[in-house]
Amino acid sequence: MTRVDLNCDLGESFGAYKIGQDEFILDHISSANVACGYHAGDHNVMAQTVKMAKERGVSIGAHPGFQDLMGFGRRQIQTSSEDIYHFVIYQINALKGFCHLNNVSMKHVKPHGALFNMAAKDPVMAKAIAQAVHDTDPSLVLFGLSGSELTKAGEELGLTVANEVFADRTYQPDGSLTPRTEANALIHDTNAAVEQVLQMVKEGTVTAVDGSIVKIKADTVCIHGDGENALSFAQTLREVLTNEGITIAPVK
Amino acid sequence: MTRVDLNCDLGESFGAYKIGQDEFILDHISSANVACGYHAGDHNVMAQTVKMAKERGVSIGAHPGFQDLMGFGRRQIQTSSEDIYHFVIYQINALKGFCHLNNVSMKHVKPHGALFNMAAKDPVMAKAIAQAVHDTDPSLVLFGLSGSELTKAGEELGLTVANEVFADRTYQPDGSLTPRTEANALIHDTNAAVEQVLQMVKEGTVTAVDGSIVKIKADTVCIHGDGENALSFAQTLREVLTNEGITIAPVK
Amino acid sequence: MTRVDLNCDLGESFGAYKIGQDEFILDHISSANVACGYHAGDHNVMAQTVKMAKERGVSIGAHPGFQDLMGFGRRQIQTSSEDIYHFVIYQINALKGFCHLNNVSMKHVKPHGALFNMAAKDPVMAKAIAQAVHDTDPSLVLFGLSGSELTKAGEELGLTVANEVFADRTYQPDGSLTPRTEANALIHDTNAAVEQVLQMVKEGTVTAVDGSIVKIKADTVCIHGDGENALSFAQTLREVLTNEGITIAPVK
Amino acid sequence: MTRVDLNCDLGESFGAYKIGQDEFILDHISSANVACGYHAGDHNVMAQTVKMAKERGVSIGAHPGFQDLMGFGRRQIQTSSEDIYHFVIYQINALKGFCHLNNVSMKHVKPHGALFNMAAKDPVMAKAIAQAVHDTDPSLVLFGLSGSELTKAGEELGLTVANEVFADRTYQPDGSLTPRTEANALIHDTNAAVEQVLQMVKEGTVTAVDGSIVKIKADTVCIHGDGENALSFAQTLREVLTNEGITIAPVK
Repeated sequence: MTRVDLNCDLGESFGAYKIGQDEFILDHISSANVACGYHAGDHNVMAQTVKMAKERGVSIGAHPGFQDLMGFGRRQIQTSSEDIYHFVIYQINALKGFCHLNNVSMKHVKPHGALFNMAAKDPVMAKAIAQAVHDTDPSLVLFGLSGSELTKAGEELGLTVANEVFADRTYQPDGSLTPRTEANALIHDTNAAVEQVLQMVKEGTVTAVDGSIVKIKADTVCIHGDGENALSFAQTLREVLTNEGITIAPVK
Repeated sequence: MTRVDLNCDLGESFGAYKIGQDEFILDHISSANVACGYHAGDHNVMAQTVKMAKERGVSIGAHPGFQDLMGFGRRQIQTSSEDIYHFVIYQINALKGFCHLNNVSMKHVKPHGALFNMAAKDPVMAKAIAQAVHDTDPSLVLFGLSGSELTKAGEELGLTVANEVFADRTYQPDGSLTPRTEANALIHDTNAAVEQVLQMVKEGTVTAVDGSIVKIKADTVCIHGDGENALSFAQTLREVLTNEGITIAPVK
Repeated sequence: MTRVDLNCDLGESFGAYKIGQDEFILDHISSANVACGYHAGDHNVMAQTVKMAKERGVSIGAHPGFQDLMGFGRRQIQTSSEDIYHFVIYQINALKGFCHLNNVSMKHVKPHGALFNMAAKDPVMAKAIAQAVHDTDPSLVLFGLSGSELTKAGEELGLTVANEVFADRTYQPDGSLTPRTEANALIHDTNAAVEQVLQMVKEGTVTAVDGSIVKIKADTVCIHGDGENALSFAQTLREVLTNEGITIAPVK
Repeated sequence: MTRVDLNCDLGESFGAYKIGQDEFILDHISSANVACGYHAGDHNVMAQTVKMAKERGVSIGAHPGFQDLMGFGRRQIQTSSEDIYHFVIYQINALKGFCHLNNVSMKHVKPHGALFNMAAKDPVMAKAIAQAVHDTDPSLVLFGLSGSELTKAGEELGLTVANEVFADRTYQPDGSLTPRTEANALIHDTNAAVEQVLQMVKEGTVTAVDGSIVKIKADTVCIHGDGENALSFAQTLREVLTNEGITIAPVK
């Protein structure tokens, strides 16, 4: 049976600041990545998000990031691997506390923003993150860019990893994402985006920008929760996948 | 056998800022209250402090406070009991993560500064804190001002509580601390401070500022880790208590 | 000629977090209170807000608050008057820098949220704020609740003060606002709110909740920039005032 | 007449956290770089530091840095030049407010830590900082690493720049600092450090690690305020320079 996970970043509101459409997007996903108070989210938002995800039957994971609310965790910060190891420990355990309150298990960890992108390429950072996940709970699933240093580091520690792919991003012949600085980095057409996901999930390949067919592992698809068409895209993707007989479910 | 716990606030350094004499004070105490990154401390300091306390055989507890690094958690912040419940959950679970790394159990929770003082008098705040401790782990010991609303709230939830007394503060006939705004609030003489502790531990009483003898429960004595004479006072207190045949050990 | 100022809090977005409808509300007001990075706003938002207000011909003021992004400056924080004096100095001078860039003068200061409310009743806090405004620039206008300790403190220092009134809040027989905890604290009907403003501006009185007519100074009316009907209310109020021959303009 | 400026970073304490020996180092320097609340310092510390520097006749400058208290401004943060321009504006104007209170002029700006180092090499960042200084007050002196992109950017905008040299760092044949990762990056011997400064000031040259003589502009020497020997080194340097007939005074 073919299956895939649909994940989305949730719980990114902070104090009086609201962001995202968490209550609606939960209808369409199987895994929620919950912000942990460093790049976004706060203790009240975390409590509410975990409760809501549990009620909707969505699998819950931690979404740790750089301690940079001002930059929403999207800015690279030069720091030591020891610092990264410690701040990932801190954030995922804080979230674990809210899962415990709700009598639900935390299932996965997906680093956020600049941390995710840097760890895709930097084996030292990747190792620090994977080790923090492993040392907290070796049964946690580590989400990383498909084929990246992060998934590799997770596998080396014996973690279950989820190779993440993107519906709305184009790929290079070497399997990497086309940088956002390139004109053709984004797929704006809903049908094309859905087709790309279908090919990834069913064939295990993606058609790169030069037309070549590249192998890619697609364990989980990242859905964006903001933007005008986020909800309708999520709904369409879910319907098409289901109609194709693909089960939408958490990796583990 | 008579016994008492000696506790001290540790791990209050932050980034490049160093505070306290943690490595030395650990020789004299049985319980360490570790700051959790809201009023003081950071994820790196927490990791190091937990490791150090474990190596020295000192019992480890969480020391949650208001999210107020600028005020070091000493300023009252008007907030909801739901907010307090959530931020205590967040902080103590973050610390629990570092205890897990070091294969040691977190044993107690002591609120910090303004949170401690407000919860001593406000039953709603006290309940929020005690509930957060209980819901995280009902075997945790809750530290509160002796005879306060906080220890009362803990007892009502079935928690083991530790009634905390002070060596260097004077008491009122009703068993409350003399406010710091009063001239005679502090005991500056080491011998007098040690004598007060001995009376509290051995007799279960304290001599109030008006000379009356007041009943007081003394499960744990708060030692200050900063100040010129902190270390020598801690050492003296430990020696006198030991010579009197009093065991210095964690509450549980 | 009768005149009144319409003011609104602007520039409260932070990093990736957007709040308010600044670009639209600017069409309807004569004074903008710009957040200064402590309770809301950041250096980029401040730069943009000052530029936008200048282009629209709206008078610019600083809107300093407690250093509490998490609480949006709405939570009381117990602190010293020296601390308040210094953080008001810091914030209003930071904003002054952005005004200088745009070759425009900063005209007024209005404290935000809990700082505004506490200073309305506490003469020591009121004095600290007024002194910070005076010592930065004695030509600045100080906005405070009509008839409060804050406007009184400003007058004592020789500052021009703007007595602020509310369109959508009811008043007590002593001229104070009905606390939000009371059922009748808010005026939900647009017409009633506009009528109240007209009476305040034209008659210098307000009808209290018990029906008594109370004297009130109305130099400036606070318009809320968020909420569903904020823009339409602002537009209606502006039209009615203009039709009544009342000039809408900054206090000075 | 030969002259040179001695500068030191001051006002880096934060809330309850004390750092540096500001009250003593002020006896030995001619320019104080005052932290502005982003990487270190707070509004109270700024107020006190400006007051103290004025009383001691030391020239006052702003010391803006990345918004990173946790990293003390020493970590590179990837951000836009617009963001840098705005946060420099914010910080230097906040400090200007405290100078105004004390009836003293702010004379210079020296970027801190990672901001200083990045701007030495990156012309875009250098331009953003120099522009922020220029647009606030074109009479301000901009401090930058001697011969760096930052001093170049300042000169292009018509600012007076101060080329900064280090007493305790070795230099490469191209005039750049030996990276701290190299074994011979630091000069530990007081006499050697003083000799290096004398050569820089009197001859306008420095002897690089390979023995070659390199031209260098030495308008101001950076003195470190922390460390065991900071005060005695500062005192020695001051004495030797004075005995050599070199005037110690601000650049402008």
